[in-house]
Amino acid sequence: MRYQLYYWPTIQGRGEFVRLALEEAGATYVDVARDPLGGMRAMMRFLDGKSVRRLPFAPPFLQAGRVVVAQTANILLFLGPRHGLAPLEEAGQLWTHQLQLTMADFLVEIHDTHHPIASSLYYEDQKKEARRRTAAFLESRVPKYLGYFERVLAKNPPRERFLAGPRLTYADLSLFQILEGLHYAFPRASRAAERKYRRIQSLRQSVRERPRIAAYLASERRIAFNEDGIFRHYPELDA
Amino acid sequence: MRYQLYYWPTIQGRGEFVRLALEEAGATYVDVARDPLGGMRAMMRFLDGKSVRRLPFAPPFLQAGRVVVAQTANILLFLGPRHGLAPLEEAGQLWTHQLQLTMADFLVEIHDTHHPIASSLYYEDQKKEARRRTAAFLESRVPKYLGYFERVLAKNPPRERFLAGPRLTYADLSLFQILEGLHYAFPRASRAAERKYRRIQSLRQSVRERPRIAAYLASERRIAFNEDGIFRHYPELDA
Repeated sequence: MRYQLYYWPTIQGRGEFVRLALEEAGATYVDVARDPLGGMRAMMRFLDGKSVRRLPFAPPFLQAGRVVVAQTANILLFLGPRHGLAPLEEAGQLWTHQLQLTMADFLVEIHDTHHPIASSLYYEDQKKEARRRTAAFLESRVPKYLGYFERVLAKNPPRERFLAGPRLTYADLSLFQILEGLHYAFPRASRAAERKYRRIQSLRQSVRERPRIAAYLASERRIAFNEDGIFRHYPELDA
Repeated sequence: MRYQLYYWPTIQGRGEFVRLALEEAGATYVDVARDPLGGMRAMMRFLDGKSVRRLPFAPPFLQAGRVVVAQTANILLFLGPRHGLAPLEEAGQLWTHQLQLTMADFLVEIHDTHHPIASSLYYEDQKKEARRRTAAFLESRVPKYLGYFERVLAKNPPRERFLAGPRLTYADLSLFQILEGLHYAFPRASRAAERKYRRIQSLRQSVRERPRIAAYLASERRIAFNEDGIFRHYPELDA
């Protein structure tokens, strides 16, 4: 199967969770909006609804033959069992998906640190509110989420070092991405958390060293973090 | 199968999406935290992680025999095909779930109208920011989401009046709940939208009239909307 991934071409954003899964799977895919033969126009044709039966609300969406799947976690639910990135039994798939949905919740909170009032406004127009929101986020939400994933790993038997058990799943790739992003956005505030939650940090390291992920991260396919994405480094927020 | 639903006992909240599905299915369930034999202690035992292998991050979660599923959309993904509330083929299930995840995104934005800075702070401590966020939300986000679901219905063949086709799914029940909630929270601002998006309003009406849903809404099992839930009526925000 050859996939077409549709996502904004200049940011990691939510598309990156899908890219990491496709890369780890060694899947063949075109990142359409970044491809000279596709581009943004190809993506917008889907969103205006003319060329698709089941209308996506927003990117990312993935085309696999005649199926078009949107919503990041839903795309991973679809890809997981097809590429050995999720357990094959139902209870394991639900559990992996549950972890992913909890990360999706975390991601909204991460985004809203710099956009607490409206995505349609510039950061500069909500800077004061962003400071207030980020302070509360760093103080209580980061420990709540990271502490949760640390506990999930701690509850597993000693030899099961991945979130959903003995084998890597898309949820591990996603947690890696979130930890990388937090480190980029809040290097100062992340330092203490990186010492405290050792299990997730060691998982992050092991994901980074996987041959396909390492090759991807070193390639031009990996877009750098930047201040148009979800994880933004604004030094004034990283207090 | 007899289910145990675990959710906060005094609000509709995210648990309501699960309750509506269980009620429409005619399923046998205990709403544990509201049950004299269960109560909040039974729910907290799960969250402290001692009595469960796969730790939920937060309520709601559903116990079905030995399986414990958390995250609202994930619970519905699990229940859907078991109770005729989702298509049986994979593409249809992914589509229904995709619609549900888009509603989950909408729901976070609805919640954050009254809590734009932090859930841990009182509304009174973020009232000024709430006004700003709500204004942007009503102006651009409500039309974006409601317009999307209206388009989804408009794209279906004429006789398929439910979101995912000719048969009711859990996504329709969830859209009903969101429309009810918006009407409760923003009666003034909702008026124009209720005239404009006729397809979703007629879906809302048809869900309300389903015998099991009507009986549920009239029963004591249906908690009233209130100012501790996701949908809160603060007249100063409903401008």
